[in-house]
Amino acid sequence: MSDSPILLTPGPLTTAIETRRAMLRDWGSRDPAFIALTAELRARLLRVANGQGTHAAVPLQGSGTFIVEAAIATLVPPAGKMLVLVNGAYGERMVNIARRMGRNVEALRWPEDRPVEPARVAEALRTDPGITHVALVHCETTTGILNPLADVAAEVAGAGRALLLDAMSSFGALPIDLAAVPVAAVLASSNKCLEGVPGLGFALVRPDVLEAAAGNSSSLSFDLHAQWRGFEGDGQWRFTPPVQVVAALVEAMRALEAEGGPTARHARYQDNFDTLLVGMRRMGFTLFLDQAVQAPIIATFHLPDDRGLAFRPFYDALAARGFLIYPGKLTQAETFRIGCIGALHRRDFERLLQAVSETLAVLEAA
Amino acid sequence: MSDSPILLTPGPLTTAIETRRAMLRDWGSRDPAFIALTAELRARLLRVANGQGTHAAVPLQGSGTFIVEAAIATLVPPAGKMLVLVNGAYGERMVNIARRMGRNVEALRWPEDRPVEPARVAEALRTDPGITHVALVHCETTTGILNPLADVAAEVAGAGRALLLDAMSSFGALPIDLAAVPVAAVLASSNKCLEGVPGLGFALVRPDVLEAAAGNSSSLSFDLHAQWRGFEGDGQWRFTPPVQVVAALVEAMRALEAEGGPTARHARYQDNFDTLLVGMRRMGFTLFLDQAVQAPIIATFHLPDDRGLAFRPFYDALAARGFLIYPGKLTQAETFRIGCIGALHRRDFERLLQAVSETLAVLEAA
Ligand SMILES: Cc1ncc(COP(=O)(O)O)c(C=O)c1O
Ligand SMILES: Cc1ncc(COP(=O)(O)O)c(C=O)c1O
Repeated sequence: MSDSPILLTPGPLTTAIETRRAMLRDWGSRDPAFIALTAELRARLLRVANGQGTHAAVPLQGSGTFIVEAAIATLVPPAGKMLVLVNGAYGERMVNIARRMGRNVEALRWPEDRPVEPARVAEALRTDPGITHVALVHCETTTGILNPLADVAAEVAGAGRALLLDAMSSFGALPIDLAAVPVAAVLASSNKCLEGVPGLGFALVRPDVLEAAAGNSSSLSFDLHAQWRGFEGDGQWRFTPPVQVVAALVEAMRALEAEGGPTARHARYQDNFDTLLVGMRRMGFTLFLDQAVQAPIIATFHLPDDRGLAFRPFYDALAARGFLIYPGKLTQAETFRIGCIGALHRRDFERLLQAVSETLAVLEAA
Repeated sequence: MSDSPILLTPGPLTTAIETRRAMLRDWGSRDPAFIALTAELRARLLRVANGQGTHAAVPLQGSGTFIVEAAIATLVPPAGKMLVLVNGAYGERMVNIARRMGRNVEALRWPEDRPVEPARVAEALRTDPGITHVALVHCETTTGILNPLADVAAEVAGAGRALLLDAMSSFGALPIDLAAVPVAAVLASSNKCLEGVPGLGFALVRPDVLEAAAGNSSSLSFDLHAQWRGFEGDGQWRFTPPVQVVAALVEAMRALEAEGGPTARHARYQDNFDTLLVGMRRMGFTLFLDQAVQAPIIATFHLPDDRGLAFRPFYDALAARGFLIYPGKLTQAETFRIGCIGALHRRDFERLLQAVSETLAVLEAA
């Protein structure tokens, strides 16, 4: 619809109109046509991460946080112990989820502008043989920092532990090769780099890991083993699926394939990010992160304190021009964020930069 | 879209095209426009059950089962005890949810064709003073039976206990007057009598009950107290909301108001049901339930065993004509179900009856 704003947010984000149009149909959730759509969904999710030979896809109704909670409830047994590698809010959230659920959990922490260090992880695993699972956030959306997946995965596998990967804001764009990198479970959702609409999370899990997890979850809804068994049994969802959200996601993944898969999408997002960064720097904004650790997913900028620029009027002026940016999520610095993901191209970022420039002229004249 | 089948299912069901069109827009989930939409959603949900003076609306991402689990996790304290009144699969599901979560739970059971008896409930509450909460399924979708809400609510309130009402398949059509009937929490979802698309559940809860429930839930995602606090704080969702599903539900509730509210909707569904029943009886089908206890939501019919009619070919032949019926969910009898809810009118049921008649002619000739 022409009156949709341009979303520079980490999801919900701007989707293609074809993706939204896929929601114009009604589906019977137990009808063969929808069972086939579910099968296509599960197969495509695996292919995005090259997991068709090694993993099983288990979609789950709800937001991304729900699939994270379901994975912890199902895969970390009550007698296990999870080590969460934390350098932002989503790592902290995993600690909270596990703690509230009564699971044994510990955190290894880094400052928000520093990536997780594999050597410290290896050291922690040597020190505490009780740790059974390690949880990592691939791209910490809090700042946009990229954590070193392959190196952490190698340390975790080398120490004989299982890795749970929150790939919420990277899945579909940043490379994840499940045939090459040892990950027990990857968690993500419909509404980020896959460019679907929100309402669905999913886990790609090794079947032997699922098998061993029967009976772990004290939550019926968040039991990924039972959810998986349901799909493998009659191809149906245990509980009512968001049929239109599923249809939109399948359509979005067909478009992802047509675009050239995650490699092409990564390149487009990188181009969006580069365009944004050059333009913002020209206007005097500075990136919060060192560029070397920055993923091309979401950029955190300092809100310059010497220019009398406050977030609210800046947001409102850009919104009036049709662009929605995102507040910062940092405890320390005054920042704002601009997402580079979604059905957006360089020209959208050029228009955004024009709008930022006009906004600055207006606000700084005031 | 013209190629949508007619869904004679208890949700997902046939929605109005205007409801689906409301999903053609992208929304920023933290933008003032979406915050306003969320406020409209919450206000409209309360008005449907006349709860604006007494209850607070707490929507939750996911399917209907999720809101049931969240309500039990949040509202029944670990030291409490829940009595579930069971005459079908959805009552049994509440027992399962509570048991797995480690809550103290007991069931009082009736056969699937018998409504809950308020006198037996009163007796159970007298006998066991440890029961703090009673859970009732308003319309048991398993069969379509209507349970006596007002009388059960009076007994529960009279005994000083709290009532949790699963109104999944009744909310928006069967009368629920929260100003008159004492209910601590009503639970329902977007995709049944409200005629929205699936992806969202909600609870209407008395604020004092929510207040007292802080800290009960061992699930972060299913903490309705925290979810409520989030809405009351900044008007936002704690975790990414299914923005298009929300937009569709608000559109559907505007249409509900335009239709004349739940009273008018109830009358339309009753007309659908009556049309269906007369026609099906004429063709020799019999209703599973005594009509006196039947809600006009979903009809369970016997699959006649003397006519060589099996569910699968019957389903397929009707599906080929554009009508999707629903399998039975009974442990005992061979049945099938036909939903009377959704954006459907008498003429749709007349067409369905025509299709059933043609189907019988073909199948019985074979
Ligand atoms: C890395 C990461 N993990 C988890 C989440 C939580 O997802 P949701 O907001 O859908 O619950 C997000 C959302 O932005 C995220 O970026
Ligand atoms: C009475 C009742 N309760 C609970 C549910 C569960 O809802 P969902 O399938 O959306 O999880 C249903 C679904 O049909 C229902 O009819």
